[in-house]
Amino acid sequence: MPVPSSLDPDRLLPGDPAALPVARALYEQIADAPIISPHGHVPAQLLLDDERFGDPASLFVSPDHYITRQLHALGVPLEALDTGRGADPGEVWRILAGQMHAFAGTASSYWLREELAAFGIDGELTAANADEIFDAVSARLREPEYRPRALFERFHITVLATTDDPLDPLDAHRALRDDSAFVGRVVPTFRPDAYIDPAAPGFLDNVERLLAATSCLATFTGYLTALRQRREHFIRHGAVSVDVGVAEATTLDLDAAEAGRLFQQVLACSATRAEQAAFRAHLLLQLAAMSVEDGLVLTVHAGVHRNHSTLTYERFGPDTGHDIPIRTSFTRELKPLLDRFGLEPGFHLILFTVDETAYSRELAPLAGFYPSVYIGAPWWFLDAPDAILRWRAAITETAGFYRTSGFVDDTRAFLSIPVRHDVARRTDAAFLARYVQQGRIAPSTAERIAADLIDAIPRTAFKL
Amino acid sequence: MPVPSSLDPDRLLPGDPAALPVARALYEQIADAPIISPHGHVPAQLLLDDERFGDPASLFVSPDHYITRQLHALGVPLEALDTGRGADPGEVWRILAGQMHAFAGTASSYWLREELAAFGIDGELTAANADEIFDAVSARLREPEYRPRALFERFHITVLATTDDPLDPLDAHRALRDDSAFVGRVVPTFRPDAYIDPAAPGFLDNVERLLAATSCLATFTGYLTALRQRREHFIRHGAVSVDVGVAEATTLDLDAAEAGRLFQQVLACSATRAEQAAFRAHLLLQLAAMSVEDGLVLTVHAGVHRNHSTLTYERFGPDTGHDIPIRTSFTRELKPLLDRFGLEPGFHLILFTVDETAYSRELAPLAGFYPSVYIGAPWWFLDAPDAILRWRAAITETAGFYRTSGFVDDTRAFLSIPVRHDVARRTDAAFLARYVQQGRIAPSTAERIAADLIDAIPRTAFKL
Amino acid sequence: MPVPSSLDPDRLLPGDPAALPVARALYEQIADAPIISPHGHVPAQLLLDDERFGDPASLFVSPDHYITRQLHALGVPLEALDTGRGADPGEVWRILAGQMHAFAGTASSYWLREELAAFGIDGELTAANADEIFDAVSARLREPEYRPRALFERFHITVLATTDDPLDPLDAHRALRDDSAFVGRVVPTFRPDAYIDPAAPGFLDNVERLLAATSCLATFTGYLTALRQRREHFIRHGAVSVDVGVAEATTLDLDAAEAGRLFQQVLACSATRAEQAAFRAHLLLQLAAMSVEDGLVLTVHAGVHRNHSTLTYERFGPDTGHDIPIRTSFTRELKPLLDRFGLEPGFHLILFTVDETAYSRELAPLAGFYPSVYIGAPWWFLDAPDAILRWRAAITETAGFYRTSGFVDDTRAFLSIPVRHDVARRTDAAFLARYVQQGRIAPSTAERIAADLIDAIPRTAFKL
Repeated sequence: MPVPSSLDPDRLLPGDPAALPVARALYEQIADAPIISPHGHVPAQLLLDDERFGDPASLFVSPDHYITRQLHALGVPLEALDTGRGADPGEVWRILAGQMHAFAGTASSYWLREELAAFGIDGELTAANADEIFDAVSARLREPEYRPRALFERFHITVLATTDDPLDPLDAHRALRDDSAFVGRVVPTFRPDAYIDPAAPGFLDNVERLLAATSCLATFTGYLTALRQRREHFIRHGAVSVDVGVAEATTLDLDAAEAGRLFQQVLACSATRAEQAAFRAHLLLQLAAMSVEDGLVLTVHAGVHRNHSTLTYERFGPDTGHDIPIRTSFTRELKPLLDRFGLEPGFHLILFTVDETAYSRELAPLAGFYPSVYIGAPWWFLDAPDAILRWRAAITETAGFYRTSGFVDDTRAFLSIPVRHDVARRTDAAFLARYVQQGRIAPSTAERIAADLIDAIPRTAFKL
Repeated sequence: MPVPSSLDPDRLLPGDPAALPVARALYEQIADAPIISPHGHVPAQLLLDDERFGDPASLFVSPDHYITRQLHALGVPLEALDTGRGADPGEVWRILAGQMHAFAGTASSYWLREELAAFGIDGELTAANADEIFDAVSARLREPEYRPRALFERFHITVLATTDDPLDPLDAHRALRDDSAFVGRVVPTFRPDAYIDPAAPGFLDNVERLLAATSCLATFTGYLTALRQRREHFIRHGAVSVDVGVAEATTLDLDAAEAGRLFQQVLACSATRAEQAAFRAHLLLQLAAMSVEDGLVLTVHAGVHRNHSTLTYERFGPDTGHDIPIRTSFTRELKPLLDRFGLEPGFHLILFTVDETAYSRELAPLAGFYPSVYIGAPWWFLDAPDAILRWRAAITETAGFYRTSGFVDDTRAFLSIPVRHDVARRTDAAFLARYVQQGRIAPSTAERIAADLIDAIPRTAFKL
Repeated sequence: MPVPSSLDPDRLLPGDPAALPVARALYEQIADAPIISPHGHVPAQLLLDDERFGDPASLFVSPDHYITRQLHALGVPLEALDTGRGADPGEVWRILAGQMHAFAGTASSYWLREELAAFGIDGELTAANADEIFDAVSARLREPEYRPRALFERFHITVLATTDDPLDPLDAHRALRDDSAFVGRVVPTFRPDAYIDPAAPGFLDNVERLLAATSCLATFTGYLTALRQRREHFIRHGAVSVDVGVAEATTLDLDAAEAGRLFQQVLACSATRAEQAAFRAHLLLQLAAMSVEDGLVLTVHAGVHRNHSTLTYERFGPDTGHDIPIRTSFTRELKPLLDRFGLEPGFHLILFTVDETAYSRELAPLAGFYPSVYIGAPWWFLDAPDAILRWRAAITETAGFYRTSGFVDDTRAFLSIPVRHDVARRTDAAFLARYVQQGRIAPSTAERIAADLIDAIPRTAFKL
């Protein structure tokens, strides 16, 4: 998509004059290529309804917990940022504009600048021009070419995966597919966390609804059958993957009797914390078993302590900016799962972490042996230029480029999709150019890798 | 301060020709600005007495455990380096000079070169010129402009924090403040480690002296009151912060009865190791509670195994170069404290670590949500150019520049203060220049940040 | 050794035009210097027999688990890569050639290109030229100058350490030493893992054979004596070091009675897992005690989960590419050992890890105090250009260059020795050049360090 002239065309490319022209050439080769977004949180309904977006604050600030968390850290109460709770959009925008210097260097500030550039805003957002930019963006948002479907097309998105509740009927997905006026591919993703973690809020109720919806018995076998049936429903609606978020990647292989006993304890609320953990660990292994059967790619996002601030959670609910990473490891944790399924042809397990220490120590060695294991793109706090380069440097010397997932934006912010992919393309071009300049990769190989990173590699990993 | 011509004016700035002029301009803007030193270990008495320093070995070698530890690793016994135990200063200096190649690349060798430069020594210290440099520095040390107060002024130090025992009457601080001939601001810091860790040598005796000094009862309530009274004494003498060093950052919220029971067990020497740990964890939470009340900033230095070599500790005591870092994490450890006080207006908690893994994984996400949490500057072994750049790269993309403490020299070596701050200024200029060159930060924003990093940011974090 | 013109002479050197000429000069100074290889896995028999190598696949693919693991990850069954199990060499070579793009950026692809260059192969291996290169290399392998001894000489290897079973009679070493036609120094290394880990396959049998071979009693004292006697045998055959691989670096100081009791439990197969771990931890301390006595350097390779894939281990045995690192720490683990022996004159303990987090946190601080502790070169997955630079950056600011082991190739692949050392020399030149360019190390000091890194430093650490 065209951007105003104030953005440096070489941004994020290396300063080193020997590497810069190589990086430029690699980037130009892929800059405008279609976007594959195989994992994210944009709802299908957004594209089905194709309603115009609201004001700039409701679009860029209130729902973006990358931005609200930083403003909160800078002393702004969350309620003052939430247009859905009555905060004035113009005032919310002014608060953000007045704090932009405190965002300098963050991924959010980089994304925001380019998102505004897509609205024709040229230059920095400041306290002085806050109202002017608010009005300019507001005016654009009323134009038809800033509606979701028009943007979807302008962004060149060829595949967009959503993330969905296992009991979601997926009506929006079906309607989108049936809508001849919409040409993109939008696929659901099965996200069973709330149905497999006994410590999740509403777990018992969720299981009950799951069993009722599938007419399965309240036995462990029935429960697994119910999950399988819902996966089938997702597959029929185009799903290619199952996603699960876990604090720890522990897996456990139990025999049927023991698993059944645990399930009844969990249902009876008599499971200890250790038994709850055992249940979760066994379920992760069962999800892998199902993926071996039905072919859905299993993606695991590990190592986040969700809802760290109890008070904030009670007042504002989940996804409000205080999910904090913890130490994460995989080698011993995944051994039971990989001993069972690691060598299964066609099984794909993509591992994401927010603990960088696992990159060279565990993820690259695991993906450098098991054909099923793929290294997930840098996730969450690590989806930023320096962090992406650290990730590449940590994994490539062991596992190369072809044992990775391809870039994953994982975003709720529809408008940030192009800039996030553009950052990945620029940083990958910079990384490849350095290896070319250092005589480590032939220029023609670098060209092939650059092209594959945005197409063949995610298509392979996610079976697209 | 002026330095001889042999030092490259662009040292530590980027080699990249695109970034170098930007870095130069940013550095020049802040190179000679006043120094704020909000945490360190220089005693107030040094400035009160204003006596001239001794010989070069007693000044630069014997008391600097960064240098003695490396010489010890190279095979020199500690006693051979200690002029206080009778080692000949000239011989100590010769030992150091003969090993300078083995210091190459270390922070210590960088600092030493610049400290010698401040004495007009131009070039490398070598075995060949050891005696000549010894004599030249010795001659300078007899001149009045190399006395502590003259240097304090020449260094442009505007604030210097010391670190003090809770029972210190702070006479030196009071006398300095009352001395009209001294214009600097020297503030004490309350460091209660020896009074709150049941495993610390002399703990029981310390608590007894604390209670006696404050006429408080030997109950947990009395003990807390005693600590509060001593904090008030520090506040009256200008203190802005409390500093605590812990092996683990674990915190624990106990009810009064349980805490009281633990305290009595600790006093009776009947506490198990687990109970001692629980006591420490609860005390860290109580220190936060006191900071919420009295406004003192709470700084936590976590993750060091003190006095690793038992034999060396028995012969030479603490702070002799064998404090070794251990794995450190904060997310789960600090949850009880942050659930109680993390959102309290005005509460400041600055977190320091020597485990780099916590930077992007925990510190930046915590400081990117909790308004109370600040990311401490790179500490101890990590206070060096490459390590500082790694720290910036690890935290900035998540938390920006304004959720940090500003540079902290944390030094016992008064003469090293300017070079340590200069290293931080140069590396920050290099880091900012890279972001400007990559199109990530506008030049004007980088200028503002560079200025704020040495003034507004530490003043905010430390409430100066 | 001469390489074809297609290899960039500046490969791996910095792109930064200010640092490049400095790096070039430093590299040229050491490029052709003799190789010291103080730890590795090339068998002495190879040089004794001096038989010509087989075909290119049997030489470069089948025995190299760095390459077979990656091909396995890319979907190729291990049996299809094993010429020893009947796979056709030409077909194996074609498989590799067809996947070279998926090796791009890995250490293996870098090494392979240079190893082929030593055979006069100029350019990239591709599917199109696979057969041609196979034939060209095959032809060379029939020439006398490609036999092991001719290559040993051409590689300029002055010292080569092998790794050997404690009961190995070391006949090949003796014969080589007695062979006046062979002028190199080939020394054995005592590797007792299978005799000291109760969980190792065949442990009891190994201990029985050890006791029988040395006529020692089946008591703990007898067992230690047997180990000592075998070490003496190794010393008589030129050994300078003992190597041990452990999952965790835990050490434990037990009194004789307790150790004896544990030993009997281990022999009776009645030891619990915790008791087995205690036995291992105590044995590591005992190995240090023996090194203090007999002077052998103790090298510890810590933190690898061996044989992660049970199925693969059962079918293909150990060393088949699925040894995966785990979190590793040393500070608390080594305290019992270092409290006993850390200050012993002449004791050398070299620590290797595949967990990068230990570099700045533990290894540099330990080696920056204890005269016995040396930081091992980047090991295994981390023996690659970017990883080596990260290692240097992480340790140098604390411990300098002289507390390290010097480069260690640790390879089974004889032909890869020169390129592995060349990579280390190039990356060290690049690192030193950066420090020179940044004004942190004087050019003359950098020259001395570059020379010492390939000679004085490994000779000191390994007592050569």
